[in-house]
Amino acid sequence: MSVKRHYDREFVRTFFTSPTAVEGEDDSAKMVESAAQLRGMQAPDVWVPDNEDATAPSMRDEGVENIVRVVSEYGADFPGEIHPRVVWHRESPSTRYQGFQQMLEITDPDNGAVDDIDGFVIPEVGDIDDWKKADEFFTIIENEHGLEEGSLSMSVIVESGEAELALGDIREEMGKPSNNLERLFLLVDGEVDYTKDMRAMTPTGELPPWPELRHNTSRGASAAGLIAVDGPYDDIRDVEGYRDRMTENRAKGMTGIWSLTPGQVVEANKGPLPPKTGSWLLEVGGDEVELEADDGRQVYDGDDVGLEESGDGYVLRVGGDERELDEDELREELLNMTAYVPSMDDIVDSMEEFEAAKESGKGAIAMTRATTLVIDGVEVDISNDRMWDEATYQAAQTPITLFQDVYEHRPDQHEELAEMYGEDVVERATNVGN
Amino acid sequence: MSVKRHYDREFVRTFFTSPTAVEGEDDSAKMVESAAQLRGMQAPDVWVPDNEDATAPSMRDEGVENIVRVVSEYGADFPGEIHPRVVWHRESPSTRYQGFQQMLEITDPDNGAVDDIDGFVIPEVGDIDDWKKADEFFTIIENEHGLEEGSLSMSVIVESGEAELALGDIREEMGKPSNNLERLFLLVDGEVDYTKDMRAMTPTGELPPWPELRHNTSRGASAAGLIAVDGPYDDIRDVEGYRDRMTENRAKGMTGIWSLTPGQVVEANKGPLPPKTGSWLLEVGGDEVELEADDGRQVYDGDDVGLEESGDGYVLRVGGDERELDEDELREELLNMTAYVPSMDDIVDSMEEFEAAKESGKGAIAMTRATTLVIDGVEVDISNDRMWDEATYQAAQTPITLFQDVYEHRPDQHEELAEMYGEDVVERATNVGN
Amino acid sequence: MSVKRHYDREFVRTFFTSPTAVEGEDDSAKMVESAAQLRGMQAPDVWVPDNEDATAPSMRDEGVENIVRVVSEYGADFPGEIHPRVVWHRESPSTRYQGFQQMLEITDPDNGAVDDIDGFVIPEVGDIDDWKKADEFFTIIENEHGLEEGSLSMSVIVESGEAELALGDIREEMGKPSNNLERLFLLVDGEVDYTKDMRAMTPTGELPPWPELRHNTSRGASAAGLIAVDGPYDDIRDVEGYRDRMTENRAKGMTGIWSLTPGQVVEANKGPLPPKTGSWLLEVGGDEVELEADDGRQVYDGDDVGLEESGDGYVLRVGGDERELDEDELREELLNMTAYVPSMDDIVDSMEEFEAAKESGKGAIAMTRATTLVIDGVEVDISNDRMWDEATYQAAQTPITLFQDVYEHRPDQHEELAEMYGEDVVERATNVGN
Repeated sequence: MSVKRHYDREFVRTFFTSPTAVEGEDDSAKMVESAAQLRGMQAPDVWVPDNEDATAPSMRDEGVENIVRVVSEYGADFPGEIHPRVVWHRESPSTRYQGFQQMLEITDPDNGAVDDIDGFVIPEVGDIDDWKKADEFFTIIENEHGLEEGSLSMSVIVESGEAELALGDIREEMGKPSNNLERLFLLVDGEVDYTKDMRAMTPTGELPPWPELRHNTSRGASAAGLIAVDGPYDDIRDVEGYRDRMTENRAKGMTGIWSLTPGQVVEANKGPLPPKTGSWLLEVGGDEVELEADDGRQVYDGDDVGLEESGDGYVLRVGGDERELDEDELREELLNMTAYVPSMDDIVDSMEEFEAAKESGKGAIAMTRATTLVIDGVEVDISNDRMWDEATYQAAQTPITLFQDVYEHRPDQHEELAEMYGEDVVERATNVGN
Repeated sequence: MSVKRHYDREFVRTFFTSPTAVEGEDDSAKMVESAAQLRGMQAPDVWVPDNEDATAPSMRDEGVENIVRVVSEYGADFPGEIHPRVVWHRESPSTRYQGFQQMLEITDPDNGAVDDIDGFVIPEVGDIDDWKKADEFFTIIENEHGLEEGSLSMSVIVESGEAELALGDIREEMGKPSNNLERLFLLVDGEVDYTKDMRAMTPTGELPPWPELRHNTSRGASAAGLIAVDGPYDDIRDVEGYRDRMTENRAKGMTGIWSLTPGQVVEANKGPLPPKTGSWLLEVGGDEVELEADDGRQVYDGDDVGLEESGDGYVLRVGGDERELDEDELREELLNMTAYVPSMDDIVDSMEEFEAAKESGKGAIAMTRATTLVIDGVEVDISNDRMWDEATYQAAQTPITLFQDVYEHRPDQHEELAEMYGEDVVERATNVGN
Repeated sequence: MSVKRHYDREFVRTFFTSPTAVEGEDDSAKMVESAAQLRGMQAPDVWVPDNEDATAPSMRDEGVENIVRVVSEYGADFPGEIHPRVVWHRESPSTRYQGFQQMLEITDPDNGAVDDIDGFVIPEVGDIDDWKKADEFFTIIENEHGLEEGSLSMSVIVESGEAELALGDIREEMGKPSNNLERLFLLVDGEVDYTKDMRAMTPTGELPPWPELRHNTSRGASAAGLIAVDGPYDDIRDVEGYRDRMTENRAKGMTGIWSLTPGQVVEANKGPLPPKTGSWLLEVGGDEVELEADDGRQVYDGDDVGLEESGDGYVLRVGGDERELDEDELREELLNMTAYVPSMDDIVDSMEEFEAAKESGKGAIAMTRATTLVIDGVEVDISNDRMWDEATYQAAQTPITLFQDVYEHRPDQHEELAEMYGEDVVERATNVGN
């Protein structure tokens, strides 16, 4: 039971933009041509030939031609969906009219690309009435070109306060007979323009984190059965920062992210997939340190936590704070300080175990997670029970559902998935929960 | 002057759920029977016999019978309110119809429980139109059973994006003649299902903190005169974590929290009450350390802050950073680094002092807080004036209003309150501000 | 292209309140008289003679007289706008009627002040229908006094859950023919009363940070072409805290803040202006430390980061964590750890450079920022390229637009601005981007 989605993919990990026409090159379509030939982890779930900000205004007519030509040639074999971005602005009727013309041309059946165009990305939308203006153009285009009404998806870039407010209206407006907003697909944050529109400033000029915008986008997507995607991460070399951002986004229910390079696409395609091997974390002064697995034991080798035996008890030091604890207290304390990151295999195991329990009539079971911690050479066995009921099961299922969605729609990634996890885990993960 | 509330309690600290029927026990009603007999700090403000997630689907008919029987027997003497949770789902008409039938049966006057049923908890609601469907069933039930229209309270669990959006509509919808939404009472967050609905993921599987959801729930409650309650805290052994969560919630205006055990009920009943004794905090590198009171002086004995006299001044070390300060600068600096947590007695004192000042025609007075800090053996007297005006007074009054609400409605807790604070403080606290 | 604003100032940095009538003074108008004569950085962008909370209820009739007299005398020469605050409450018709009478009296042309009254501040508003009640009184007053309809601005204090919800309705309601809400100007948060209304509590009694409220206020302002202003910062001596709050606010698009003293006005007038000189930051364990500029090099002299040469590589120590890196890896790592805070001069340079590039047909250029870091005596050259396109340019422009707005509307601050930046930088900053 969930909000009904009007499109194929349940999840979109990657939203990769390419300039449609680059000036001063022998072949202005170079970037779109190479993007169209990406495969496997380098190929995005959604590819966006970008005829707006990434392409100079003077090159956008040529951009339309390039989209038509490249999608006609390579579109049928492209493993992801194709959603060109056209121009649009909530405050400029002439820009909106240009966007309409670009879409009309790209989808002209005589041009041969339309069969491989899944939809369009509309930037700079305003309040919901502005979204409806774009939707109306889609409807007219579908009618003119003999396409099925509602067959072209519409994705929007949320980059103004008005558009953020509209996120609260989508669910209510979508069902109305006077529009075809059921064509909505991705809600994408555009933090650069949003920052400008909000007139926000930071000392270094870096973008504010905008946690509320991302929450509201994710909530709007959830309420209307759409998919939330975060905006571009400018610092292309900062892979660690990109990963942290994605982890933060996933905790908000925002599974997808913009990618500016094939390298970012690889990171963002892999980001939401559970790890091959599980790991233990120790929380030290607000940070979480990954422990080193050594023969089934988890070794901490930093200086911030210390442990020694003392008479019949222990002395545990955390930062500058020392406490004497008996064995039970120590276990309790260390349990509170540790956490386990389950592997794909672990998640599948737990789900299978819960399914078997449910089959035999139990509504809730305890899942045990145990290990041996080693701090300053002192070994302590810890063990944690977590109650699983139907709700826990379903919440844990999200990464598996995502994996299955990827597996179904991206055969070009099967080989890499098998290399990452092994054939056996991949097979169990594709079958569990169905 | 405040939004009018349509129920007795102004505050609800505790929302305690019990499975209505447990399989494989001699007496399937065991859990509800023992919960119904809780008293004092172990008894919740709102008790929720849970005929939804806590009870296996196959046991829910028996759960209805158990609720009827146990509430008939123990309900009249139960010190809190009783609000069973029935089944409901925004996307399943059959589940909604089952919920209706459960409520109809529990409130049947022939069954003898209805006089002690204060209302029902409706889980898994969707947008505001879905809330109205539940409200309509309440109205029909009241009519069928000859109860006063609007006499049964309705509380909802917010565990979907749609329901979160509906929090912005309550105030506007409540007054309409075609519904009885004035029966609304508690807005309860359900973070497990919300996380699932938002398709959020964290590496360790722990729940995201969802600060925006809690804010929106609290704001929705404030705007419509309702009460906001946070969802379950799964790690039952982690008392410190549960307390921290409640402190965070109170700073958002969310006074109540779900409790899964009588032990959590005790913590959550006491959590919002001011402490017996005041204490001083020293801010050290982002953390706040409680100083040790010693004969009117406040002693810091950690290593992160150091102080020594030097010629005619002082050297203050904070972390790795040393600064030479004269006496005034030192006082200023230490004032900025310290904070005082007032006791119940302190709050009553301040309120009485302000009331006297107001009586004598003053609109604002300075409240002084002074002590002697001891760091590395060096003593420094600090003193802080804070201006109190009507607004400060009223904001400070919230914990006292809460205390008075508890004192009025929970005579079974009087003895424990007297033990906690002493008779004298209890008496003054019950009288101040009225 | 941006949402149309119906007022002169594009930015308001400072919102300074003064009690209109103080009891027990020879001259009850003392505070408003001295405020009216402030000039330069001590004078606010918006001055608010406060006939509500800052003035005792018994003094408010005299307060109205004082406003009339002082504004008649000093108003024409006051360098900022003048917006008295009158009484209002969403739940009290008598308070609302008093507010109407106060406004009617202050704007009576026979009293001579109206020409220098720019508008009024309405506190304690509720939902949008309550805002319309206030707006209707403005309209009646304008009509009675022969003023142009819509000529008096209306600013509101958001200090209830209802008012926060109304922030989502402004844009939609503003255009309706039955109101004159186009007169809206400032959206000001009032956290003391908001905290009371939300019934929030903190252990020390200090105000919760309310990040969501500030976001929603800023977003509401952005969507409706208004200006967002944060509430009072009570701890007047804590200049550092006030500055940090403003930095946080600006990252949310909230450029203005309440000021309680001329000292706070100076801080808040200067806060949003770019610094005279740029500086480098090093991120150390979550904090950002400003490096010491020494002859073009940036020197770190703390203990938390260490660097030494080792064979043909380097050992970088961050906290307790040591890593061996070759030169390229070291540069990469240090680049990730550093950030640059550009000066006014730097921002103007970058904008000019981008404008020149655009002129010559380029849509995006790389801006290079390079320096030499010195850690433990080891020197490392680092250099960072950041891509600037039209969107980056426009986002970077916000502080310059603010500066130009200040320069245009506040000639009384020209001298201080020239002292801060030098004539040359001021002149270039006033011309760039136009």
